[in-house]
Amino acid sequence: MKIIHTCHSLIEEINKLREQSPQTGFVPTMGALHNGHLQLIKTAREENDIVVCSIFVNPVQFNSALDLEHYPRNPENDIALVKNYCDILFMPSVAEMYPRPPQEEYHFGLLEATMEGQYRPGHFNGVAIVVKRLFDLVQPDIAYFGRKDFQQLAIIKQLVHDYNMKITIRSIDTVREDDGLAMSSRNRLLSPQARSVASFIWQTLCKAQLLKKEKNPREISHWIQEQFNGHKSFSLEYAQLVNAETLEEVNEYNQAENIVACVAVWLDKVRLIDNIMIK
Amino acid sequence: MKIIHTCHSLIEEINKLREQSPQTGFVPTMGALHNGHLQLIKTAREENDIVVCSIFVNPVQFNSALDLEHYPRNPENDIALVKNYCDILFMPSVAEMYPRPPQEEYHFGLLEATMEGQYRPGHFNGVAIVVKRLFDLVQPDIAYFGRKDFQQLAIIKQLVHDYNMKITIRSIDTVREDDGLAMSSRNRLLSPQARSVASFIWQTLCKAQLLKKEKNPREISHWIQEQFNGHKSFSLEYAQLVNAETLEEVNEYNQAENIVACVAVWLDKVRLIDNIMIK
Repeated sequence: MKIIHTCHSLIEEINKLREQSPQTGFVPTMGALHNGHLQLIKTAREENDIVVCSIFVNPVQFNSALDLEHYPRNPENDIALVKNYCDILFMPSVAEMYPRPPQEEYHFGLLEATMEGQYRPGHFNGVAIVVKRLFDLVQPDIAYFGRKDFQQLAIIKQLVHDYNMKITIRSIDTVREDDGLAMSSRNRLLSPQARSVASFIWQTLCKAQLLKKEKNPREISHWIQEQFNGHKSFSLEYAQLVNAETLEEVNEYNQAENIVACVAVWLDKVRLIDNIMIK
Repeated sequence: MKIIHTCHSLIEEINKLREQSPQTGFVPTMGALHNGHLQLIKTAREENDIVVCSIFVNPVQFNSALDLEHYPRNPENDIALVKNYCDILFMPSVAEMYPRPPQEEYHFGLLEATMEGQYRPGHFNGVAIVVKRLFDLVQPDIAYFGRKDFQQLAIIKQLVHDYNMKITIRSIDTVREDDGLAMSSRNRLLSPQARSVASFIWQTLCKAQLLKKEKNPREISHWIQEQFNGHKSFSLEYAQLVNAETLEEVNEYNQAENIVACVAVWLDKVRLIDNIMIK
């Protein structure tokens, strides 16, 4: 595995590899890698000739400087984790990715306005800025994203569509801890006590899924809200049942072919998100 | 020469050619090609293994629907003109370049606010949108632009810098008609009578250049303004002497290493621009 730090050498190296074997898989990450990331990388390895992984804590997708500062970083561990699966690990500096603070703005309508968009203004613009730049550099055939960040996935699919990019977006099921907590780099910011109740998120979503025979989507989202409001460790930001394609909130089952329940909660000053397919 | 209409086949075709001979030159145009364009294409041919030319009348860089509608188009003639010099001619439809109306916004500070920016709001955002998309598709080593569009050149250099793109921007001297009029697709919109006085633009700029021994930059720009205000066929939008790198207006010679005089005028309902290096 080659570790590369500049955009120009990345392009050179990929072009060199591509001469022999064209199919390229790409896994963009912010580091602090866990088994969820590893699942993306292993899938990429199975499906492609070349595997490129990037580690870049993208400042422009953070809403708060404090959040950026506290975001976990562990480059040595990351390198050890991926070195048997990747051909190229791209670890650019901020100055390399953004010679000037990025000025471009992307707009995605409801896809960005709903859910995360209400609580993290500018977040998806920051995601689109970095993903577009990375896609342009790597020009992958397939790019891999976890389903935990469900709204991000919708944004990235729209981005690829809008730019007519020749990239397949593959979403991979969320990898969970034994107790069901969705793997996330932010989990390591939880205190032991907070960690011990964190599985309540996934348990609540699983129960919500089982309610679909007796309650309509609007009632289920209210039910989820009540569960979190009744638990003293959690502060709920949103719990919504949405159309899995358009992210429009749905009240009735006939309003969408696929419906997903999405939640964002605060637990011990750590913001966690998760989701479950309801229909 | 292959004529290609879709983004995906463009990428495939370029990758195929690149396997044998990597160095790629790119000339993006809006068609209605003239000798100025041909000069860019011939230079690209001399300096590269592969030459890609694009013809796309980019709707998002037009300020007025009327201007877009009247923009000259002559694809058969364009194809005949370039077919001996290009390997690939890319002629996408609007739906191909923009599956959804482009939502992204680029910002360039003073570079976009001055001169053209005052009279064509959104124009350079539209230019950046299409140039960025074309650069991402073609991934050229060198891209060629005419110096007539001096401000556009500064914008594109900034774009390449901001994205750390591995592209050299080569600017080529303006090609002129025998009487000095800068070649432009818009020239063919001039009535014979307007055409007969159009050389006044270049004559005025040449005289302005000769004034540098007796007048300072501020005085020269006033002098140019007076010339156009005193000619009944022209309506002046701006005449400015600016720092060739930053595009800041200069009053004194010591304010910039290189100074260029830029003008935009209306002649017979056609908007024409030109410029000359003063220092």
